[in-house]
Amino acid sequence: MVPRTQRAPRRAELKVTKKIAGDEPVRFCALGGLEEIGRNMMFFEYRDEILIIDAGLQFPEQETPGIDYIIPNTAYLEEKKANIKGIIITHAHYDHIGAIPHILAKLGNPPIYTTHITKEIVMRRQEDYPNSPKPVFIIVKGGETHKFGQYFSVTFFDVFHNVPDGIGSIIHTPIGDVVHPGEFKFDYDDDGKPKNLDVWKRIGEQGIHTLLLDSTGAETPGHTVSERLVEAELEKTFRSAKGRILVGTFASLLDRLGEIIKIADKIGRRVAISGLSMKTNLQIAQNLGYLNFDKGLIIPLEEIGKYHDDKLLILCTGAQGEPKGSLMRIASGEHRQIKVRPGDTIILSSSVIPGNERSVQSLKDNLARQGAIIYHYKMLDIHSSGHAAQEELQMVMKLVKPKFFIPIHGYYFMRQRNAKLAEEALNLTPEKTILSDNGLVIELHKDSARLTNEQLPAYYVMVDGLGVGDVGEIVLRDRITLSQEGMLVIIVTIGKQGGKMLKNPDIISRGFIYLKENQDLLEEIRRKIRAIISRIPHGHNQSLDADYIKTLIRDQIGQFLYTKTKRRPMVLPVIIEV
Amino acid sequence: MVPRTQRAPRRAELKVTKKIAGDEPVRFCALGGLEEIGRNMMFFEYRDEILIIDAGLQFPEQETPGIDYIIPNTAYLEEKKANIKGIIITHAHYDHIGAIPHILAKLGNPPIYTTHITKEIVMRRQEDYPNSPKPVFIIVKGGETHKFGQYFSVTFFDVFHNVPDGIGSIIHTPIGDVVHPGEFKFDYDDDGKPKNLDVWKRIGEQGIHTLLLDSTGAETPGHTVSERLVEAELEKTFRSAKGRILVGTFASLLDRLGEIIKIADKIGRRVAISGLSMKTNLQIAQNLGYLNFDKGLIIPLEEIGKYHDDKLLILCTGAQGEPKGSLMRIASGEHRQIKVRPGDTIILSSSVIPGNERSVQSLKDNLARQGAIIYHYKMLDIHSSGHAAQEELQMVMKLVKPKFFIPIHGYYFMRQRNAKLAEEALNLTPEKTILSDNGLVIELHKDSARLTNEQLPAYYVMVDGLGVGDVGEIVLRDRITLSQEGMLVIIVTIGKQGGKMLKNPDIISRGFIYLKENQDLLEEIRRKIRAIISRIPHGHNQSLDADYIKTLIRDQIGQFLYTKTKRRPMVLPVIIEV
Repeated sequence: MVPRTQRAPRRAELKVTKKIAGDEPVRFCALGGLEEIGRNMMFFEYRDEILIIDAGLQFPEQETPGIDYIIPNTAYLEEKKANIKGIIITHAHYDHIGAIPHILAKLGNPPIYTTHITKEIVMRRQEDYPNSPKPVFIIVKGGETHKFGQYFSVTFFDVFHNVPDGIGSIIHTPIGDVVHPGEFKFDYDDDGKPKNLDVWKRIGEQGIHTLLLDSTGAETPGHTVSERLVEAELEKTFRSAKGRILVGTFASLLDRLGEIIKIADKIGRRVAISGLSMKTNLQIAQNLGYLNFDKGLIIPLEEIGKYHDDKLLILCTGAQGEPKGSLMRIASGEHRQIKVRPGDTIILSSSVIPGNERSVQSLKDNLARQGAIIYHYKMLDIHSSGHAAQEELQMVMKLVKPKFFIPIHGYYFMRQRNAKLAEEALNLTPEKTILSDNGLVIELHKDSARLTNEQLPAYYVMVDGLGVGDVGEIVLRDRITLSQEGMLVIIVTIGKQGGKMLKNPDIISRGFIYLKENQDLLEEIRRKIRAIISRIPHGHNQSLDADYIKTLIRDQIGQFLYTKTKRRPMVLPVIIEV
Repeated sequence: MVPRTQRAPRRAELKVTKKIAGDEPVRFCALGGLEEIGRNMMFFEYRDEILIIDAGLQFPEQETPGIDYIIPNTAYLEEKKANIKGIIITHAHYDHIGAIPHILAKLGNPPIYTTHITKEIVMRRQEDYPNSPKPVFIIVKGGETHKFGQYFSVTFFDVFHNVPDGIGSIIHTPIGDVVHPGEFKFDYDDDGKPKNLDVWKRIGEQGIHTLLLDSTGAETPGHTVSERLVEAELEKTFRSAKGRILVGTFASLLDRLGEIIKIADKIGRRVAISGLSMKTNLQIAQNLGYLNFDKGLIIPLEEIGKYHDDKLLILCTGAQGEPKGSLMRIASGEHRQIKVRPGDTIILSSSVIPGNERSVQSLKDNLARQGAIIYHYKMLDIHSSGHAAQEELQMVMKLVKPKFFIPIHGYYFMRQRNAKLAEEALNLTPEKTILSDNGLVIELHKDSARLTNEQLPAYYVMVDGLGVGDVGEIVLRDRITLSQEGMLVIIVTIGKQGGKMLKNPDIISRGFIYLKENQDLLEEIRRKIRAIISRIPHGHNQSLDADYIKTLIRDQIGQFLYTKTKRRPMVLPVIIEV
């Protein structure tokens, strides 16, 4: 890789850049993130140059059982990989970085523009993918401007999120400036005033063509709970605890982890960390100087026995009830160092991701049963979302004053809410707020922005074990059927000569009913099969029509089982001709 | 069945009843409802007499894929069915009535004590189960006392829930009076004062031994939103709608349905109903006089075309995103009479049941995409829970003033919250609030109440198609494995003479990878199998050890596939000896 320029170009150069371009539109397309929370990836294209923002993953859903995760479809970009000038990574969360190891090679290993901590977390993840190329990083800082090819340049600005070092982009394009803040929330001062509003104000003064805005918080009224309040509430809760304190939260919530450790120090408790991902992230943040603690404050988990219960705080992963998370292993008694004791105070400092309600419920139940005192975010203000809520989004809109608005990140309904917020705040007509879909191309002209009919490939690419994209619709449909109804394999051995069954049909079944305890049904199935085979006319020299026999078995046995059980297991006949 | 007495016994008789009994405890046990929301069923036992309350179902969970639902385990009661004096059904929701058709015969068809509307809804459901015996009903009313055998009698009282005709019980037992209110909320008058507090006050004046209390709302601070407010908010939303109004809610939320129809009448809209269960329930409520509407107000769905959009309101099932619900069929364009039109106002007047978040999200997205204006309960007060919240629970506790408290209905954590509320409101020591588990027996003595170690069978009984209890742990475990990893059946045909493979191994796979597109892998598997078989020593007269070969194939092919794909499909070898 040839390292690209890292020097901030002067404004004059950018002006020249713009002049080169004619009246062609800039093309904008999100490959993921518009019909889900996650899998964020989008790009800008002008002539033969492409600028990408983020490359995240999406966690599996009910309709995609068994897969590890879903990544954006990069088919379009792969064809044009020579045009890619760089990938900007806004922050270090998996829904923004998770696809990197899977797509980097396919896209020709373009340079990644991001901040220090994001780089380190991406690099940590690359270790798990030895076949992915070594990424080329260009470290950026708020205030810097970087050139991407001849048409694009980007001025970065710092944003506040719940992982440090989030970065927003002002993308200077031939048709005007587009703002992509990444994900952000507001930090509040002690008087409850939002900090750093002047950054947004200055952006607005430049005259912004289009604002792309996260919709995750667009359904949340008001503003997010101030992290200062969360801190105060955590301190109060910690101080009231008599025994050990265990705090469960996301390993990626680095700022929160920092706050918790700070409070622990203040109230005289040592901190142990249970969970590899959390340990690694904290290590990265410490190495880079984002978090600083007194030596000796953080102790190895193996040494918690040396301290009194009321001198200990243990940070744990698994607050979402993930089976392999620390808290779940603690709850089930499988954790090597930590067993729940009556009097332990356990604090779940995170919201519940939709879909995890049931496992978080059983986590809380198991811990409470063992005598722990549990606090969770619905009981106290011990968590705050990382995503600006309605009032905060409108505040940004009013400061940035874009001519056009494209809500990104979130389901259609959330993005629709975000668009309505923009129409209200900016007095925009609905045509100027654009609700797109994954893969749809938006054309940004100097004085207009419009959704086209051009649909780029955006269907799911699923990662399952070592396979990327080899689990498709058929496999998923089969998995769902198997999980609902189970299956029955019927093996019929037939003599080539004479077409007679040579032995009793072999039947194996899984997920249907326990056949060992249903010998009668098994016998009936065998009888049915014999009847089916015996009715097939055959001569000595006629070859068997295996497909025909299979269809007969599938249909007739399927129907028979449905009548008997009102279930429809997958019936898989195999004909062995000997 | 011999009909039991329906005459309310005089107080004097009850006194005599109590005298008969000695110092033995009353046994109380919940067979379901203590570790979940749903599957509610509990019973009291004294000497040779048993009184049951409710027989509900629980909807399937992630860990029970493919089953229809889970019912309480009645093994203990079946053995003692001659002792059962009756089943009280508190109200007509499925988590209280759903198990009836499956358990009635097993329990010797004991009489069911309930109210009119609950009876009709139970009877409607019986139609789907022609093999279940005809239930024997004894209709009860608030204020009546009914005798159950010689030891128990019950004074009923009316409670307010979101289905009409809910009933609470004061169970007079040899050790004292136990109150089981069923499920309830409070109705508020125009000044915001809760109605009918005197009922609870009078109960408290009798001197109550134990209060059993629903924990569903125990984590919700304050009180429930008044139905009057919901009504007002719905009316406001209806009035602002320009086109058609579609309202999605639960078919069982009969009171809400009644309110909505009343408002429609007020604002001059006809009402059509889409969804069989909703239609049936409304019919029952109308027939019994619980709901009264002007003739012509409710029109057949087929006739909606005859009315202007702004003269129509359509009530729909499927607000939880159920695939077969009306709203889902409308959203996907599969509904025969209703297609979404831009300008339709769609109101989801129900909360989202945990686990349904994703499908409700996609329902909202699909409807919004087609131009409908959506309102849901997080945006407006257009839904109110049917379960008393913290302040209301404590109000009941303080009025009833029990000596002991047993929280029922809900996960451990919710019940623990409820117990804490009771300790606070009643100044009880923790020993007097009892956190039990499904199947655990509580002994109620005259002056004490204690949890024993006696554990009655309470494991899941699953209903799947026509089968009740035939889907067990093995089948479920297989279903989960199949849905995560898929499977591979390997059929090896071996000659009895010589132990040689007679043909290429047959391989069928589902839910693993799409083998048609992975011929290379398939060929590698075949090669591995041939190698395995060729290494087995055999003589002419030696019979094959099929189990040994199967183990070899399962282990070695399983390992091979894991190395190649990092997935662990179920490998099912079949040896055909010919």
